[in-house]
Amino acid sequence: MQLTVDWVVGFVDGEGCFHIGITEHPEMNLRYQVLPEFTVVQHKRDIQVLYALKRFFGFGVVRKNHGDRWAYRVRKLEHLEKLCEFFLHHPLKTRRNVDFRKFRHVVLLMKEKRHLTREGLLEIIDIACSMNTAERPRLEAIKAQLVTG
Amino acid sequence: MQLTVDWVVGFVDGEGCFHIGITEHPEMNLRYQVLPEFTVVQHKRDIQVLYALKRFFGFGVVRKNHGDRWAYRVRKLEHLEKLCEFFLHHPLKTRRNVDFRKFRHVVLLMKEKRHLTREGLLEIIDIACSMNTAERPRLEAIKAQLVTG
Repeated sequence: MQLTVDWVVGFVDGEGCFHIGITEHPEMNLRYQVLPEFTVVQHKRDIQVLYALKRFFGFGVVRKNHGDRWAYRVRKLEHLEKLCEFFLHHPLKTRRNVDFRKFRHVVLLMKEKRHLTREGLLEIIDIACSMNTAERPRLEAIKAQLVTG
Repeated sequence: MQLTVDWVVGFVDGEGCFHIGITEHPEMNLRYQVLPEFTVVQHKRDIQVLYALKRFFGFGVVRKNHGDRWAYRVRKLEHLEKLCEFFLHHPLKTRRNVDFRKFRHVVLLMKEKRHLTREGLLEIIDIACSMNTAERPRLEAIKAQLVTG
């Protein structure tokens, strides 16, 4: 299956997910780790589309998600940088582009190692809050810890 | 917003829905009406993408769906024929293409007025059953009525 640039942009406008994970990591100085992740999830019957995305970008992995669902996933920072370059030059047309731009901002901050500073981590948590309202209470609690701790 | 052919195919691979509705209609000879429908549903914040699809195809309507969700919708048979021509020449890459081909088969049967014959209607109901497992019990009941009645 051969994918074109515009098909990929259209499909990611429908199915892509840009997510900034913030997880506890006791060995890190600030106790919290930033895990940006790009995923496209499909039912296993469409797994060939996920492998085609992997071939198209030249990085990322295809992994089982939940139940019958599989995901194409990009986590490595150097690959996320390349992914961001792609969507910078070929913009998404839906509001997902707003999430993408926030996501790219976090990737650039991480490239500059700003996530290892308290100030940078707080900035990233604010961005994550604005992208995912469901996680807001948990992220606000982490923020409070970081500010007082 | 200007859409390209490949973006539309990619977006519909993610978000499009081909549906064959079978509804009761007491004034019709066979008592049941076939309502094929193509929809793309989005949160209202992406309503401009729905209008862009309407401009791209040159037909269809943008209507409120449920709550905050809006839909681009094509129902007229002559427009569905044109839509099917488009996706025949620019194939979907996911398993949605299987649904599309069944949908197109129904549209072609309707063009030949086969849905107005008991035999044709039964064929269409079988196709609808194979596309939408959730509606299967209701459709099987209609089939039983048509066969015995």
